[in-house]
Amino acid sequence: MPSGPPIVLTTDFGNVDAYVGVMKGVILSINPQASIIDLSHQVQPQNLQQAAFLLGSAHQYFPPEAIHVVVVDPGVGTQRRILLLVTPTARFLAPDNGVLTQVLLDHLPNPPHQPGQVPVTVTIPDNCSVYALSNPEYWLQPVSNTFHGRDIFAPVAAHLSLGVGPAELGERVEQVAWLPSPEPVQEGGVIRGQVIYQNHFGNLITNIPQRLLAQADQVTVTIKGKSIRGLSRTFHDDPGLSLSSPSEKNLLALIGSQGYLEIAVRDGSAALALPAQAGESVSVTVTAKT
Amino acid sequence: MPSGPPIVLTTDFGNVDAYVGVMKGVILSINPQASIIDLSHQVQPQNLQQAAFLLGSAHQYFPPEAIHVVVVDPGVGTQRRILLLVTPTARFLAPDNGVLTQVLLDHLPNPPHQPGQVPVTVTIPDNCSVYALSNPEYWLQPVSNTFHGRDIFAPVAAHLSLGVGPAELGERVEQVAWLPSPEPVQEGGVIRGQVIYQNHFGNLITNIPQRLLAQADQVTVTIKGKSIRGLSRTFHDDPGLSLSSPSEKNLLALIGSQGYLEIAVRDGSAALALPAQAGESVSVTVTAKT
Amino acid sequence: MPSGPPIVLTTDFGNVDAYVGVMKGVILSINPQASIIDLSHQVQPQNLQQAAFLLGSAHQYFPPEAIHVVVVDPGVGTQRRILLLVTPTARFLAPDNGVLTQVLLDHLPNPPHQPGQVPVTVTIPDNCSVYALSNPEYWLQPVSNTFHGRDIFAPVAAHLSLGVGPAELGERVEQVAWLPSPEPVQEGGVIRGQVIYQNHFGNLITNIPQRLLAQADQVTVTIKGKSIRGLSRTFHDDPGLSLSSPSEKNLLALIGSQGYLEIAVRDGSAALALPAQAGESVSVTVTAKT
Repeated sequence: MPSGPPIVLTTDFGNVDAYVGVMKGVILSINPQASIIDLSHQVQPQNLQQAAFLLGSAHQYFPPEAIHVVVVDPGVGTQRRILLLVTPTARFLAPDNGVLTQVLLDHLPNPPHQPGQVPVTVTIPDNCSVYALSNPEYWLQPVSNTFHGRDIFAPVAAHLSLGVGPAELGERVEQVAWLPSPEPVQEGGVIRGQVIYQNHFGNLITNIPQRLLAQADQVTVTIKGKSIRGLSRTFHDDPGLSLSSPSEKNLLALIGSQGYLEIAVRDGSAALALPAQAGESVSVTVTAKT
Repeated sequence: MPSGPPIVLTTDFGNVDAYVGVMKGVILSINPQASIIDLSHQVQPQNLQQAAFLLGSAHQYFPPEAIHVVVVDPGVGTQRRILLLVTPTARFLAPDNGVLTQVLLDHLPNPPHQPGQVPVTVTIPDNCSVYALSNPEYWLQPVSNTFHGRDIFAPVAAHLSLGVGPAELGERVEQVAWLPSPEPVQEGGVIRGQVIYQNHFGNLITNIPQRLLAQADQVTVTIKGKSIRGLSRTFHDDPGLSLSSPSEKNLLALIGSQGYLEIAVRDGSAALALPAQAGESVSVTVTAKT
Repeated sequence: MPSGPPIVLTTDFGNVDAYVGVMKGVILSINPQASIIDLSHQVQPQNLQQAAFLLGSAHQYFPPEAIHVVVVDPGVGTQRRILLLVTPTARFLAPDNGVLTQVLLDHLPNPPHQPGQVPVTVTIPDNCSVYALSNPEYWLQPVSNTFHGRDIFAPVAAHLSLGVGPAELGERVEQVAWLPSPEPVQEGGVIRGQVIYQNHFGNLITNIPQRLLAQADQVTVTIKGKSIRGLSRTFHDDPGLSLSSPSEKNLLALIGSQGYLEIAVRDGSAALALPAQAGESVSVTVTAKT
C-alpha cells in the first residue's frame, strides 16, 4: 500500500518541462511506495499570491498529515529559508516567502492586515510549529543553486513520508514571512472588496466572505459599472433579476465553493464578458434584514 | 496495494485551479489507498459532446469495475440528477445531462438518432442499471450548490471503491438523458458525415465508421473542396495518390485508432492546413468491390 | 504496494485528448498495482530532439529499474522498430528514431558527432542491451496502425513491470538510431554554442556544459548582440555586472540545474526579452585562470 500520507505538489513549473517528473523520481527513489498528488503546476511564474490562494482553498480537503510541497520560489539559491510548517492537520514544505499565508490564516487569532503587497512577518500560532530546513543529510547532493525542488523539497518530503521527525530536519523558528492580502472594507451599507482570483471558467472570485452577507436581506453587487441585483444559488440560475442591459443579461453573483462572493456568467466567462481580472474593485450594497 | 479499482476522472476543470486536486484530497480522505487516474481535465467548459466522445473512446481500455467520474456539469446545484450507471464492465458517476451517451451506445440495441443537439431520454438497456444519487450519508457536508465534484462525486466514488453497493447510494431509475449525435448518411455511392473531434495533433476525426468503408474498392474523401484519393495506412504514408495541389500534398485520410475515418496531414495539422474543425462536412465517394 | 518499479510516460499526446488515459487504462488492466508517473505529455508534436532532451535530463533521478516509455513516434505503423533499451540503471521503451540519444550518451565512450539533424546509427555500448519488440503475445490485439502507445508500448511496459524478461519480448539488436545534436566549438578563448531548449519560465538552456567554464576566471556571454559579464549564482542575483542597456538590465547567465549554461531574466522571460528560442547562437569569451 502507499506508505504514509499523500505528498501534494504545488509549483509554477508548468506541465511541459521535466521538472515535476524529476521531483517525483527523487521522491520515489527514497520512498518507492509514496503516494504523490498534483495540486497545480500552473501557478503563474513567481506568483506567490496565487499559490497562497490555491493552497488555502485546497489543503483542508486532504487527509490528516498530508505533506504539502509548495515550490513557487523566485529566491531559490539565495539566503531565503525553506520552512516546514506543522499544523494540527497537515504539514507544509515551502520557501519562507509568504506562500503559506492563507494556511496560517486558518490558525492565527489576530492576523496582520497591512495594505500593499510587501511581505511582513508573523509570529506563528501556538498550535503550529515551524522548522527551517538545515540538515543536509536529507538533501540530494550536490545541491544546485537553481532547483531546490529536486535537491531539497522532494527528498525532505519523501523522508517525512517515511516518518522522519521535523526536529531532525532543521531548527525551530518563530517568525515567518507573511503576504498581506487586501481585506474588504464595510462602511454603512456598502462593502468594498476586490477580485482576488480568476478561475478556469472565467469566474471572478472576490475577497468578500459569505459571513459579511449572511444578515443581508437584499444585495446589489457592482463591478465595472454593471450591477447585479440579488444572489443566485447556482451557475445555472436565470439571472432575471440583474439590472443589466441585454448584453449583460447572463451576469450573476453567488457564494462560490470557497465561501466567497463570486461573479460569473451563465455558460460563459465573466472575465471575458466584463472584462475584468484579479485586482478589479467590487462593491456590494446591502439592505439588512429587518 | 491500491484498494479497489481505479477511479478515473474526466472534468472541464482545467489544470490551473485546485479543483481536481481537491477532489483527489476528498477521495484519499475516505480511501487512502485509492488509485486515481486522470482521463482529461481539459474538456472545453460545459462541452457535453466532447466529454461524451472522450469517455466513449476510452472507457473500454480500463480494468473491469473501474469507477469513471465525469464532472462536466453546467447544471450543478439545480434539480438535475447525478447518476450511477453500472454496465457489465464498469461504473460511471455523471450528471444526467447526456455525457454518458457514447457509453450507453455500446449497450443499446436500438439507439435513438434524432437530429439536432437537444437532449432526449432513453430507456436503459437490460444489462445495465442506473441509480440516481439520493443518500446524503455518502456526501461531504455541507453540500455546496456549485462544486458537487468535491461534495458528491468524489466522496461517492471513494465509497464505491471501498465496496459500498449502488442500492445504498440512491434509487433505481429507468430513463436517462441522451445527447443525439449526428449520424452519417449513405446514399448510393456517397457517404455524408462530419468532423466530430479535433485532436491535439490537429487530426480531424469524423463520424464515419470503418464498417461503412469495409466493402469499398476505392474511396475518395472530400473536405472543404479538397479531395483525397485512397486511404493511407499510417500517418507517415506518402500521400502521393492525393488529388490535391502542391500545397495540399500532405493531406491524407485513414482509419484512426478509434475506428473512424480521420483526416490528417503528415507531420502537421489538418485542422490548421485546411482549416477545419468539429462540425465540418466530409463526404466519401465509394466504389464497391466487384 | 505498487507492484514493481514506476512506469514513467513521455509523449507528445498533450493533456486534452484521452490517449494518455487510455495507455494508463491498458497498463492497469494488466498490472492493477502499477505505479505510473507522467514525465511530460507536452513534447511538441513529433519533436524528437525535445523528447530526447527531456528524457536525458530526467531519467537519472528515477529509481533503478524504472521503466521509461517514450511515445514520440511520427513513424507509428511503419517498419520502424520499437526498442527496449536496458541500461545498468533503467529500462526504456521507445521507437527507433533517436529519442534515446541523450540516454545513450551517458553510456557511450565515443559518441558520433555528425553535424546536421539527419539520424545516423550507433552501436550500443557493452554495458547496455537493446531488443527490438517482436513478440505479439504481449501486445493488445488487434494492433492498430496509428496508436502503438495503446497497443504495444503500454501492454509491454505493464508486462515488464510484472517481471517478464527482455528476451521474451523480442530479439537483440546492436545498432540503433542516433540523433546528432549540435556540439559547442571551442577556439582560443571563445566557445560557440547554441540554445537547445526554452523552458516554461523562458530560460534559454544552451549546449555549453559547466566543465568548459570550470577553468574560467572571467566569462562574457553574448546572445543576440547583448553581452552578459560574469555568471550569476542564482536567478535572483543582482545582474549589476551586465554590460547591457537599461532595458536589458535583468539579463543574467548561470549554470542551470542540468549542468549547462543558461540565459535567464530575473523575474521574467529571457525568451521574450531578447527574444530568442532554440537554435539561437550563443558565444562565451573566456579568460582562463592564471
